[in-house]
Amino acid sequence: AASTTGPNGEKRYEVGRMRYISVSEFKNKPYVNIREYYDDKGVEKPGKKGISLSLEQWQKLKTFVDQVDNDLKKY
Amino acid sequence: AASTTGPNGEKRYEVGRMRYISVSEFKNKPYVNIREYYDDKGVEKPGKKGISLSLEQWQKLKTFVDQVDNDLKKY
Repeated sequence: AASTTGPNGEKRYEVGRMRYISVSEFKNKPYVNIREYYDDKGVEKPGKKGISLSLEQWQKLKTFVDQVDNDLKKY
Repeated sequence: AASTTGPNGEKRYEVGRMRYISVSEFKNKPYVNIREYYDDKGVEKPGKKGISLSLEQWQKLKTFVDQVDNDLKKY
């Protein structure tokens, strides 16, 4: 799927209405952000609802995908 | 990896210090939560930092894993 560019130049992938996963850099370290944006006078800005994962946390999260999917099976 | 049980009986997988991915149910619908917890007098409680994804948003997020990993390659 295609990416779009956010207000801070970040490459974003839309996971839902105004919600994106993106990679950003802070103090020379990469973060994976899963975050809701909001409309500020026509400009989309990253909001408070969300989390920024370190590279290590992102790698760890990926190891749980199968288990989470299994937990979701009952729905 | 092993899961632990959170304060609301939720099955959690630890992605980092006090950060977990878990599945919860709200109004008969499942949500995938990626959230930071905090210590409230010895009891871990889910905090404000985090996001709760609908099943649809979670499924969408998974389709972007490879692209996000590719964006992380430059680090």
